[in-house]
Amino acid sequence: MNKITILIHCKDRPNIIASVTNFIAKNGGNIVYIDQHVDREQDIFFMRLESEFTSEVFSTESFKLAFKSDLADTFEMKWRVYSSEKKPKMALFISKYDHCLYDLLGRYNSGELNLEIPFIISNHKDLKPIADNFKIPFFHIPVTKDTKQQAEDEQLELLQKHNIDFIVLARYMQIVSSKLIDKYPNKIINIHHSFLPAFVGAKPYHSAYKRGVKIIGATSHYVTEELDAGPIIEQDVTRVTHAHAISDLITKGRDLEKIVLANAVKLHANRKVMVFNNKTVIFS
Amino acid sequence: MNKITILIHCKDRPNIIASVTNFIAKNGGNIVYIDQHVDREQDIFFMRLESEFTSEVFSTESFKLAFKSDLADTFEMKWRVYSSEKKPKMALFISKYDHCLYDLLGRYNSGELNLEIPFIISNHKDLKPIADNFKIPFFHIPVTKDTKQQAEDEQLELLQKHNIDFIVLARYMQIVSSKLIDKYPNKIINIHHSFLPAFVGAKPYHSAYKRGVKIIGATSHYVTEELDAGPIIEQDVTRVTHAHAISDLITKGRDLEKIVLANAVKLHANRKVMVFNNKTVIFS
Amino acid sequence: MNKITILIHCKDRPNIIASVTNFIAKNGGNIVYIDQHVDREQDIFFMRLESEFTSEVFSTESFKLAFKSDLADTFEMKWRVYSSEKKPKMALFISKYDHCLYDLLGRYNSGELNLEIPFIISNHKDLKPIADNFKIPFFHIPVTKDTKQQAEDEQLELLQKHNIDFIVLARYMQIVSSKLIDKYPNKIINIHHSFLPAFVGAKPYHSAYKRGVKIIGATSHYVTEELDAGPIIEQDVTRVTHAHAISDLITKGRDLEKIVLANAVKLHANRKVMVFNNKTVIFS
Amino acid sequence: MNKITILIHCKDRPNIIASVTNFIAKNGGNIVYIDQHVDREQDIFFMRLESEFTSEVFSTESFKLAFKSDLADTFEMKWRVYSSEKKPKMALFISKYDHCLYDLLGRYNSGELNLEIPFIISNHKDLKPIADNFKIPFFHIPVTKDTKQQAEDEQLELLQKHNIDFIVLARYMQIVSSKLIDKYPNKIINIHHSFLPAFVGAKPYHSAYKRGVKIIGATSHYVTEELDAGPIIEQDVTRVTHAHAISDLITKGRDLEKIVLANAVKLHANRKVMVFNNKTVIFS
Repeated sequence: MNKITILIHCKDRPNIIASVTNFIAKNGGNIVYIDQHVDREQDIFFMRLESEFTSEVFSTESFKLAFKSDLADTFEMKWRVYSSEKKPKMALFISKYDHCLYDLLGRYNSGELNLEIPFIISNHKDLKPIADNFKIPFFHIPVTKDTKQQAEDEQLELLQKHNIDFIVLARYMQIVSSKLIDKYPNKIINIHHSFLPAFVGAKPYHSAYKRGVKIIGATSHYVTEELDAGPIIEQDVTRVTHAHAISDLITKGRDLEKIVLANAVKLHANRKVMVFNNKTVIFS
Repeated sequence: MNKITILIHCKDRPNIIASVTNFIAKNGGNIVYIDQHVDREQDIFFMRLESEFTSEVFSTESFKLAFKSDLADTFEMKWRVYSSEKKPKMALFISKYDHCLYDLLGRYNSGELNLEIPFIISNHKDLKPIADNFKIPFFHIPVTKDTKQQAEDEQLELLQKHNIDFIVLARYMQIVSSKLIDKYPNKIINIHHSFLPAFVGAKPYHSAYKRGVKIIGATSHYVTEELDAGPIIEQDVTRVTHAHAISDLITKGRDLEKIVLANAVKLHANRKVMVFNNKTVIFS
Repeated sequence: MNKITILIHCKDRPNIIASVTNFIAKNGGNIVYIDQHVDREQDIFFMRLESEFTSEVFSTESFKLAFKSDLADTFEMKWRVYSSEKKPKMALFISKYDHCLYDLLGRYNSGELNLEIPFIISNHKDLKPIADNFKIPFFHIPVTKDTKQQAEDEQLELLQKHNIDFIVLARYMQIVSSKLIDKYPNKIINIHHSFLPAFVGAKPYHSAYKRGVKIIGATSHYVTEELDAGPIIEQDVTRVTHAHAISDLITKGRDLEKIVLANAVKLHANRKVMVFNNKTVIFS
Repeated sequence: MNKITILIHCKDRPNIIASVTNFIAKNGGNIVYIDQHVDREQDIFFMRLESEFTSEVFSTESFKLAFKSDLADTFEMKWRVYSSEKKPKMALFISKYDHCLYDLLGRYNSGELNLEIPFIISNHKDLKPIADNFKIPFFHIPVTKDTKQQAEDEQLELLQKHNIDFIVLARYMQIVSSKLIDKYPNKIINIHHSFLPAFVGAKPYHSAYKRGVKIIGATSHYVTEELDAGPIIEQDVTRVTHAHAISDLITKGRDLEKIVLANAVKLHANRKVMVFNNKTVIFS
């Protein structure tokens, strides 16, 4: 049996849902999940479907061709079709902080993540032993002002060689260049240690302390050209008081960061995120 | 234009979604909302649709007949069809606490609630002035051990005379009898001042204090024969510490109670709740 | 019996706690509550005490004189002493939104607030009936560009005539002038409908919608010269999704606003807030 | 410099705070933290102090003797005095689940936990590689119905040989006997995967699913004779919906379990927890 996930968005107009469900039925599929959203401000329709096809002659490629000519062209849809047979490939970019790394690899090990991790890239060697323990290939690519260009070329080569689908910056601490962003649009997931849009940029816990906020947060978002301004995937917060020093905020924040990032990774890997106009639609 | 909301549940089987969407399209409707859920343990399919019909000859009654014969009978569906033209009628049962009453009437006044409140019933006269201020008819029906039977008959008469769709017990403090429950199955909404199933029954804040919990809650649920054991619609919680006395729990709890109850009322009034096997499916 | 609440802050140095507790004991007081905080960055010590004095000849004024000469001068303390006999007087400034007003007056009526409300000021007449229902004097002081100066003079006159201790802007929707802020430093409480410092200024729900945040918030803070930048007293947040329109954010936000504002009012009225360097210390 | 933490509880009566602070001052100490709580129902006074002693001849043992004779005997206090020089020793009991183990060891490694972990005990060998990676001695002590008595003797021997201060059951999955509980009263910390007192006993996620709750929780508590009924140290919750299967509750619950347990361990290790009458007082 083949299981197909379809993501669609297009200008809203009558009969899209009926047309799509009809198409699936005609092609021998049984819809096991459907959810849709209409952005009334932009007048855009979004849909996510999961369908099962039991026919032995079913081919994802033929299905895509038919979908395009019978449906997508008519409604001028942007669309993606994924087969459940192929797990997405995720590259992990890390630096010196280990909490998100331990958390993601622990989940990966326990089978919680529906993805593959072909390798880890870091600009420092410090966390190599953790990668080794979990038996994930580790590439040390140092980044200095002078070697940044060359380092990115190395990164790109690895990403392409391994057919990486998306990149996770698990507290990578480096600003990613336009070249990488252009190759992986809405496919680079960052974790920022504040409740965006508050405290964009460096040292958000220091800024939160200075402002005297009573709640701190963490935000996972897709990386875009503008710093910390990409589409938000997931956020969470926790209470703090005047009694918490900056070091306490950092410690409490680590617990937010790892869980918010893990949730964003799961949403992306399960193809539950659509992006439009710098915002996300998150399907259930 | 007519807007119709359809709620369906039946045994899960292939092609339900396509059949329903096809039926709507054939009858000239445009689906503007669709969401579905499959309970894999029970093998039950649930769906909620909103459709718009622009034909001038559209009749909700004819639609229901066609839906039944073409679709519901085939799939052995339990189903309900609501027209957006008819707002549900809610009866408020209260006693001496005013926080849920103020909160609900404030929302009602501001247009936040998509419903009508034909009257308020109370077993005490204390809150009549509030009802008067909001210009809602108020019926004082005292309940004593001896008059309970007669009081319920009076209540039922009022409910039926005004074609009440559902009842909200806004801290009513009386146990409702089987007779009322049978007439309004999954249509009587209660607010219980604990995080059910913890602290069933009377004085839950006292029990929470005694147990030393660090979080208290409130639960809104449909009333069934078994006390505080009906299908849960909505819950929320808040943190407490050792420093909170019972009176503090009661004060903090009031804020939970009023918001949890209001959310449950809105979900019910907007036909977003389905009940199966003593559990709810809550559509978005 | 007299109950005295003392708030102190000064440069941190050894033996402050022992000196203060000793002073209370020597003067016949029994300490029933003590809490302290040291801001290690600024090297500032904060303390809050509640003491009971049973002597029949106890006088708050004499106590203050002794406290000043024996203790406050030595440690160069900033300090305030409150007698529990005198409830703080709060002036409510409102405009057209009623949710915070209903909420505060409901709590006031039920005895939850340890304060007096001598009057309500509004720049519109719309909510006068609510003030009437709760039997609170209502003054309509319209504010236009031309009359702003004169309106503030009227406000000030009322505030001073009634010996108002603090002001609550319950969605007042007007920017308060420096003159008022200078007369009531850290005594004007505002509710801002965002999770500050995100979305400062007008229409924060619109900005939150545009940015696509997954959590919205409300912040209660003291009013200072800089807009929405004063010391934060209390914040809370709630989850939202892509499916929430701006109107949904506004509705959900109202529930945050009223509870956050009420909590800030209670903290202030119970003398649990100290301000230093544009941040608050909130005692338990 | 010596830093001493004192925990006290006794019947409430006048002048305790002044007497204690005076005693500290007389003995050359400077109080850097003080917090107190009075349980008005039980009429019990609780206090936590941190004091610094700079004298070179200061001795913790002499201080204890003086404290006892000058203060504790007079007020009939229960009291404990800890020197900051001595980190508490924690034994980890585990079984087959690794999420709490990874989480605690990751924090331990990063210096977040103010304690020592002399060894890990498990009734299964599965997680030994993790202990090895973190270089913590691992003892495999299988437990069967027949060997339970003997296994506990082995455990006790290890605990006493290493002067263990407290035990953490990180999803240990075995019921601990009275013998162990008696030796370590309020010193065995368990993590239960429900919002206690809801869903006591085995398979709480299954029970939560069956009841249809909208929020699940985790609870860390001290182990007492009665199952899952000991004093609660920390709780947290997260939202779930009808769409979550039992396996989803288990996955989401793991994130709660690890963070709630870590918080409880930190509170205990930092001597911030007092127990009275099966409830905890948690100091800030």
